[in-house]
Amino acid sequence: MRAVQYRSVGSEPEVVEIPTPEPGPGQVRLKVTAAGLCHSDEFVMSLPEGSFPLPMTLGHEGVGVVDALGPGATGVSVGDSVAVYGAWGCGTCHACARGAENYCPRASALGIQPPGLGAPGALAEYLIVDDVRHLVPLGDLDPVAAVSLTDAGLTPYHAIVSSLGSLPAGSTAVVIGVGGLGHVAIQILRAITGATVIALDVDEEKQKLAREVGAHRALHSDDSAVAAIRQLTGGVGAQVVFDFVGAPPTLEIARQSVAQAGRIEIVGIGGGTLAAGFFSTPMGASVRAPYWGTRSELLEVLELARSGAIHVEVEQYTLDEAPEAYRKLHEGTIRGRAVVVP
Amino acid sequence: MRAVQYRSVGSEPEVVEIPTPEPGPGQVRLKVTAAGLCHSDEFVMSLPEGSFPLPMTLGHEGVGVVDALGPGATGVSVGDSVAVYGAWGCGTCHACARGAENYCPRASALGIQPPGLGAPGALAEYLIVDDVRHLVPLGDLDPVAAVSLTDAGLTPYHAIVSSLGSLPAGSTAVVIGVGGLGHVAIQILRAITGATVIALDVDEEKQKLAREVGAHRALHSDDSAVAAIRQLTGGVGAQVVFDFVGAPPTLEIARQSVAQAGRIEIVGIGGGTLAAGFFSTPMGASVRAPYWGTRSELLEVLELARSGAIHVEVEQYTLDEAPEAYRKLHEGTIRGRAVVVP
Amino acid sequence: MRAVQYRSVGSEPEVVEIPTPEPGPGQVRLKVTAAGLCHSDEFVMSLPEGSFPLPMTLGHEGVGVVDALGPGATGVSVGDSVAVYGAWGCGTCHACARGAENYCPRASALGIQPPGLGAPGALAEYLIVDDVRHLVPLGDLDPVAAVSLTDAGLTPYHAIVSSLGSLPAGSTAVVIGVGGLGHVAIQILRAITGATVIALDVDEEKQKLAREVGAHRALHSDDSAVAAIRQLTGGVGAQVVFDFVGAPPTLEIARQSVAQAGRIEIVGIGGGTLAAGFFSTPMGASVRAPYWGTRSELLEVLELARSGAIHVEVEQYTLDEAPEAYRKLHEGTIRGRAVVVP
Amino acid sequence: MRAVQYRSVGSEPEVVEIPTPEPGPGQVRLKVTAAGLCHSDEFVMSLPEGSFPLPMTLGHEGVGVVDALGPGATGVSVGDSVAVYGAWGCGTCHACARGAENYCPRASALGIQPPGLGAPGALAEYLIVDDVRHLVPLGDLDPVAAVSLTDAGLTPYHAIVSSLGSLPAGSTAVVIGVGGLGHVAIQILRAITGATVIALDVDEEKQKLAREVGAHRALHSDDSAVAAIRQLTGGVGAQVVFDFVGAPPTLEIARQSVAQAGRIEIVGIGGGTLAAGFFSTPMGASVRAPYWGTRSELLEVLELARSGAIHVEVEQYTLDEAPEAYRKLHEGTIRGRAVVVP
Repeated sequence: MRAVQYRSVGSEPEVVEIPTPEPGPGQVRLKVTAAGLCHSDEFVMSLPEGSFPLPMTLGHEGVGVVDALGPGATGVSVGDSVAVYGAWGCGTCHACARGAENYCPRASALGIQPPGLGAPGALAEYLIVDDVRHLVPLGDLDPVAAVSLTDAGLTPYHAIVSSLGSLPAGSTAVVIGVGGLGHVAIQILRAITGATVIALDVDEEKQKLAREVGAHRALHSDDSAVAAIRQLTGGVGAQVVFDFVGAPPTLEIARQSVAQAGRIEIVGIGGGTLAAGFFSTPMGASVRAPYWGTRSELLEVLELARSGAIHVEVEQYTLDEAPEAYRKLHEGTIRGRAVVVP
Repeated sequence: MRAVQYRSVGSEPEVVEIPTPEPGPGQVRLKVTAAGLCHSDEFVMSLPEGSFPLPMTLGHEGVGVVDALGPGATGVSVGDSVAVYGAWGCGTCHACARGAENYCPRASALGIQPPGLGAPGALAEYLIVDDVRHLVPLGDLDPVAAVSLTDAGLTPYHAIVSSLGSLPAGSTAVVIGVGGLGHVAIQILRAITGATVIALDVDEEKQKLAREVGAHRALHSDDSAVAAIRQLTGGVGAQVVFDFVGAPPTLEIARQSVAQAGRIEIVGIGGGTLAAGFFSTPMGASVRAPYWGTRSELLEVLELARSGAIHVEVEQYTLDEAPEAYRKLHEGTIRGRAVVVP
Repeated sequence: MRAVQYRSVGSEPEVVEIPTPEPGPGQVRLKVTAAGLCHSDEFVMSLPEGSFPLPMTLGHEGVGVVDALGPGATGVSVGDSVAVYGAWGCGTCHACARGAENYCPRASALGIQPPGLGAPGALAEYLIVDDVRHLVPLGDLDPVAAVSLTDAGLTPYHAIVSSLGSLPAGSTAVVIGVGGLGHVAIQILRAITGATVIALDVDEEKQKLAREVGAHRALHSDDSAVAAIRQLTGGVGAQVVFDFVGAPPTLEIARQSVAQAGRIEIVGIGGGTLAAGFFSTPMGASVRAPYWGTRSELLEVLELARSGAIHVEVEQYTLDEAPEAYRKLHEGTIRGRAVVVP
Repeated sequence: MRAVQYRSVGSEPEVVEIPTPEPGPGQVRLKVTAAGLCHSDEFVMSLPEGSFPLPMTLGHEGVGVVDALGPGATGVSVGDSVAVYGAWGCGTCHACARGAENYCPRASALGIQPPGLGAPGALAEYLIVDDVRHLVPLGDLDPVAAVSLTDAGLTPYHAIVSSLGSLPAGSTAVVIGVGGLGHVAIQILRAITGATVIALDVDEEKQKLAREVGAHRALHSDDSAVAAIRQLTGGVGAQVVFDFVGAPPTLEIARQSVAQAGRIEIVGIGGGTLAAGFFSTPMGASVRAPYWGTRSELLEVLELARSGAIHVEVEQYTLDEAPEAYRKLHEGTIRGRAVVVP
């Protein structure tokens, strides 16, 4: 089969021919119907030698049709359209028992790696999924439209639902960075909260996109934004700031914009950290970097999409065009999300 | 192997010889190290013809040692000491994705039945468990002491943790019925809340047991209890009433004892219901009948036992003595829980 | 001043001339700018002799302009436009300390009665409010549009936010009864949750209103509704049923429609109760009759209205027309809410 | 009357004679029965000129007997024994409406200052409280034993109850610093959670105190503690770390000890901040500096003390000895809390 691989440290992704994999005991093979590209793929390709076994097939957003079942695999049938829940954990610890495999404390020690983040990813004709519990039914959702919900939808959804207690009607949520995740975050906030949504971006096109997908305000992401947020909230600040950039300048905006007892959710892996504590962050305001989402949250995100409340802006590519799509992603010229259809 | 079976409607449980079962794909066979008897077994044996396939091996509380793995079963090893999580669901729906298989809406339609409640139970030398996810590690916990935690521990634990928001320091919890579940409920309340615990029972021995396991007060379970609870709470009532009997008289005590915005948790299957609504239950007070518990809650209950915070009072029997133990259970002469060691 | 009073048991409301009240220590006098009529006023007028001191000025929904401050009253200024939080409690107990004065366990014993429910109500030119904490700023909200938010908005809002944990994206909420409260409930559900909203009413005009204000479906409120809800939810049932009627037939629909681990919120005082417990309500499903709402919830409801997310359908009357408006309310010919402007 | 004042920047606290204050409208005068000394008083005395009006009577922990009521003050009676809730807010905003005056966003702008933190404090014979809502009944609790619950009890209680969702049975809580707040935190954790409590301190006497008040383990607070916590938690880390020191070395221990999806609560004002974000703090782990507590939490803390579940270790001083007690506090030679009885 054909696959898009990252083959050696420092190289560009390549389209190669590799053997079609066979599902082992308890495993499921999918015929991939769509796979998404993500900025974190670039992060993966920036890591030093030895971080992952190479070559590695890329792609941690994947949907497909069940193609073959390994021995003992039950619960899905050949032909089912499914999405892959990518945050694989041990399945048995306290976190996993609640479906929060994204916070499994044992995954790393057990060598468990999700597709595209160690294990062979979704940018290929076929994909092996280790366990039926990592599949959720896609039903009649369009694969191309839905695939990025597994990360670009789930990751902001998890950050938002973790913060719901701070987002009652009348509260204010700030979204910094209106890219692949940020433009979905805005829609989710509008769909499931009564909060006022203020979006920040340095790019006017992205501010425009923010307004189109429901932001009440879209502002330029600089120091003036802090003053604007304070003014719009009567001096109180934003109850929650979602930073989809995570670089030092955006984190500084977050720090200065958040309300007492509010929350800062650092979602973007932009290399920054934020000094939390007295005389830096407001009293009672928490800071954290959440990771991906839970199994039940993925089910919820797919339902939001099914109801029409959210959608991912998508640019579609073939497998052969994937290296080109990665270049555009790097240049920041993708609107929304790049999706490959094998 | 030998097993305790309920063979036909209206008959007594019998010890019989049946074939030792083989684990199918994804299944696990346990050599049973302990199995618990429960009042709900009696309920099962009171159901009309056709409710369950007969004969059926009894026992929905079970612990054992992994004895054999079916094809594709991974995640446990032969020799592991494990407890069975008994509330089996489909594993893939929204409830199951959070580990709340006890509320799986699809289990019934899919014909999923837990051991001793349709499928062959734990009162036998060997037990088949359908999936590794239904096993939790027992570690060095004593099987006889621990087995009843899977129901007599988990069921009250679930009712209590569901009510934690109503049980801050200074609140009052009432436990009606100090039997197999009630005497564990008292210990859990003392271990994980700052609530004052008032236990009610018609039997003075059980009131004594209540005090021994930590109840602040133990009262006779009649009309005088309502007045006493009102008096002890300054007229406010109890924030949560746990009714482990569930018969009309105890539900009436619950109704009259609960505070505004409080909770009544009907755990006992005593045949009663409670009229909820204006002019019957206090404003904002909720009534519900919870069922068993979640996978992560079972892990928590076992940790509570490991720390010494809770224990189940146990009377130990052999497999041959199981029918006799059921008779004593029916007569109400078991102190705590009856456990069979095959 | 002129006031609408209920003067003796069994009589109709009358417009009378009474002395303008003076604010005592800590009290505030409002010049009423709008007052709402409510079905529960009818309930009040159906109570036997001695339930309330008579004659009593009616009206528990009120907004006004601060007109005079009693000694020691601080925190508002003459001329402020304010809404009255009507669920008055003692202010110092545990419930009141969290702003949940609607569940104050001491109010009744202390003889604390809100306006129109014992104390003189808002259907008058002037209204005395006992404490500044029972006033919330109305700002530039239109008094006529906003007054019913203090009950017809706050009461469903409280029931809904109490249930938010059961209303994730993909869940289903059922609203029974599309009257003064129900039509606001639909809007609140759409504004702050990702749930699918199914509205039930016996009146086709009200079903039409339900669709206009955002219900995904509006069905006839009879036995067929149960089957329809089951079918629309894949057999699972509704995670939350809000019954704004509360009569035996609607409660029976609620009982049969709710999902396992769901919630039934009985908001309407229709004289019914619901048998909660095993073999009646689904496992884990709770039933309760919430009462009004908290102070912080009132602030949130007003913000929802300010953002345009919700509004109350209003028919406007003068003080002299109030008795006529009560007659129409009784006949069920008010669309939304009747509001009196003195 | 006599009072302990901080009179000018850089000076020591002094006992002085000042006029006995009169309660204004809505205010209450207490005859102080006990007042607590706190490390944060030292912080206050380290601030530059102009931070507070000087001279200022010290003491933000106070209990007393109601001595005189200003005009319009109702709800307490002369002779009542009461505790002062010290985190004064505006009383009307969203935070205050829920009793979370500790996070009132308007207090600062409105010039609202609590006793001993701007307004005249409790280290005096008489104390003016601005509003009855800032008093909670003390009942028969001993003033000397109870006074420090208003801060040294309430502050850790607030941090702990905010974290309850992360502290199920089987979880681990780390308490760094076994001083005035830390030794109460240990008791609260034991009283209201099933968590394992590990205490860290550099002082062996304080480690001994930690064990006496209920810590499962007490370790030396250095790098070895991180390894020990990882080992005791099977590599997972602590679900919550409460840092009552807040200096860079203790925050580094917190950072390295906390579990994924855990919490770090910085309670001590030790001058440090913690770099939160990817590659610094574990995924999903939050960091915040909570402030004091809410009104309802103060009621709960007092109930915990009343039940005997917690107590504050106290050294008692007269008003004249207060300056000396501050010196001992500075030297770190107070065991538990220093309390002054005027």
